[in-house]
Amino acid sequence: MAIATTAADPLPSWNDGAGKQAILAFIARVTTAGSPDFLPWAERIAVFDNDGCLWPENPMPFQAAFAIDELKRRILVEPALAAVPMVQAALAGDLGKLLEGDHFDGLMQILALTHTGMTTDEFRVAVEAWLASARHPRYGRPYDELTYLPMQELLSYLRAHDFKNFIVSGGGVDFIRVWVERVYGIPPEQVVGSTARTTYELRDSGPVLTKTLDYLFVNDNAGKPVGIHQFIGRRPVICCGNSDGDHAMLQYTTINNPRPSFGLIVHHTDAEREYAYDANTKSTGKLVAALREAPTRGWVVVDMKQDWKAIFETD
Amino acid sequence: MAIATTAADPLPSWNDGAGKQAILAFIARVTTAGSPDFLPWAERIAVFDNDGCLWPENPMPFQAAFAIDELKRRILVEPALAAVPMVQAALAGDLGKLLEGDHFDGLMQILALTHTGMTTDEFRVAVEAWLASARHPRYGRPYDELTYLPMQELLSYLRAHDFKNFIVSGGGVDFIRVWVERVYGIPPEQVVGSTARTTYELRDSGPVLTKTLDYLFVNDNAGKPVGIHQFIGRRPVICCGNSDGDHAMLQYTTINNPRPSFGLIVHHTDAEREYAYDANTKSTGKLVAALREAPTRGWVVVDMKQDWKAIFETD
Repeated sequence: MAIATTAADPLPSWNDGAGKQAILAFIARVTTAGSPDFLPWAERIAVFDNDGCLWPENPMPFQAAFAIDELKRRILVEPALAAVPMVQAALAGDLGKLLEGDHFDGLMQILALTHTGMTTDEFRVAVEAWLASARHPRYGRPYDELTYLPMQELLSYLRAHDFKNFIVSGGGVDFIRVWVERVYGIPPEQVVGSTARTTYELRDSGPVLTKTLDYLFVNDNAGKPVGIHQFIGRRPVICCGNSDGDHAMLQYTTINNPRPSFGLIVHHTDAEREYAYDANTKSTGKLVAALREAPTRGWVVVDMKQDWKAIFETD
Repeated sequence: MAIATTAADPLPSWNDGAGKQAILAFIARVTTAGSPDFLPWAERIAVFDNDGCLWPENPMPFQAAFAIDELKRRILVEPALAAVPMVQAALAGDLGKLLEGDHFDGLMQILALTHTGMTTDEFRVAVEAWLASARHPRYGRPYDELTYLPMQELLSYLRAHDFKNFIVSGGGVDFIRVWVERVYGIPPEQVVGSTARTTYELRDSGPVLTKTLDYLFVNDNAGKPVGIHQFIGRRPVICCGNSDGDHAMLQYTTINNPRPSFGLIVHHTDAEREYAYDANTKSTGKLVAALREAPTRGWVVVDMKQDWKAIFETD
């Protein structure tokens, strides 16, 4: 079901429920000339989590799938890697093992192998090649064709109302920037993500930046407001997330913000068309904190099964 | 001499020399529809150094003047500070002493006293109060009235041609973002500067970010291409600087860039109206490297005395 946006209905793949009404009402309130809550365009900053908010994060974050495919490619030229325990864990999809320990040593080892040592240009080419060839195991389609149609409509609707949309993701900024302009219409300079410092040198071939893991900044949880301040430098007025990794930036956007503000949580409830998984924290079995806090804060909870007519553009 | 921009002459405070002609020719070349070098607007990224390129850096960088005035304010409530040797050096304007040693311990001590421990909101208020009250020792005017009129015209001209102007400064991003939108029409999210990580907490009063010096990133010299990559994520096509601190980003912008590119150096030659100081490196007495390299690279050297009719708006 490809759904065309019209002036009469800018969010056609959203069912006509409380979530859609709340979005339309907020945008009208802050962009209608003469409204007491009118926001000058410079203040119209919207931030979006990426994994699980703009595209799926199952069966694993797509960047992890990229890293595993990169490992497979590396093993062909360096077979000894296949014997490394953390490489074996990664190839087996055992992300839990990579995340063991206080310093995520396994994950760092895999990142070092797949995300460092190359120039930023070489890394970009690798991501582009992966997107062109890899297919999602369940949907059988390129990963970058799996963005959520209702969220794409929301991005367009905000842009049409002079909002500047930013990605604020725990994913690596170099990974996301490769495709985000083509796929979401968001330019690279509007991506806040996990970063490490590159090193600069002028080679005979020209200037080169080489990727490292030095000064790694993980843009997740409490890191998201820190990243927003560092990269954007002002508080957003709209924040869309889906997990407790977005809890702090939802708070940062909406609590005691002198400007009108709006929080939204994409709640994954649709096992048939997508995945149903994010209601309870694994450790306690209780409702995740962001969802628990949503009614008090006035954050809109979008129930994917109830609220979305279509999930993907080709549904 | 306040000079009005007109359609016939978008750079009226520039004398009609080679520098002005080179700027106009480049912009026409990359923004005229049908030109073989036409740049889509998304690729129109221009970066500007701040100190010495958009406003003066004498008799000391303006942020250093802010730090010294902050120290004076702090001493009123904490008189013991007056006995600290590095505080005494700062108050005496002895910046050389603060920069001694491999790790700039003196400078770090002064930054810790004046740029950390407060919330980002408190820091912003302090910068605003300083700009409202402090006066430049030579010109007797508020620091933010001392931007270079010819560079302001260039910023406007580029903006009118759909360029996105970024500040890329060694100065602190939190210091610059306070006033840059009002003074240059550049929004905070288009400022790349020196940064350190804030810490996030949710207090009863709301979300708070506190300034620290942790993970300090100095956006100068080879740090500038690193900062550009980290914050912007693509190579600029225009780079304007004035010192060897901008040498690496001039190279990064213009050497083997697959897109057409333009480098410009503001050369401080006008002791009468501004300052004459940046021709030779202090240690060797030789021409600074960026100026030495300019002819080979095709970077336009702007001679302030020859090329600028006016320096400031009120000249």
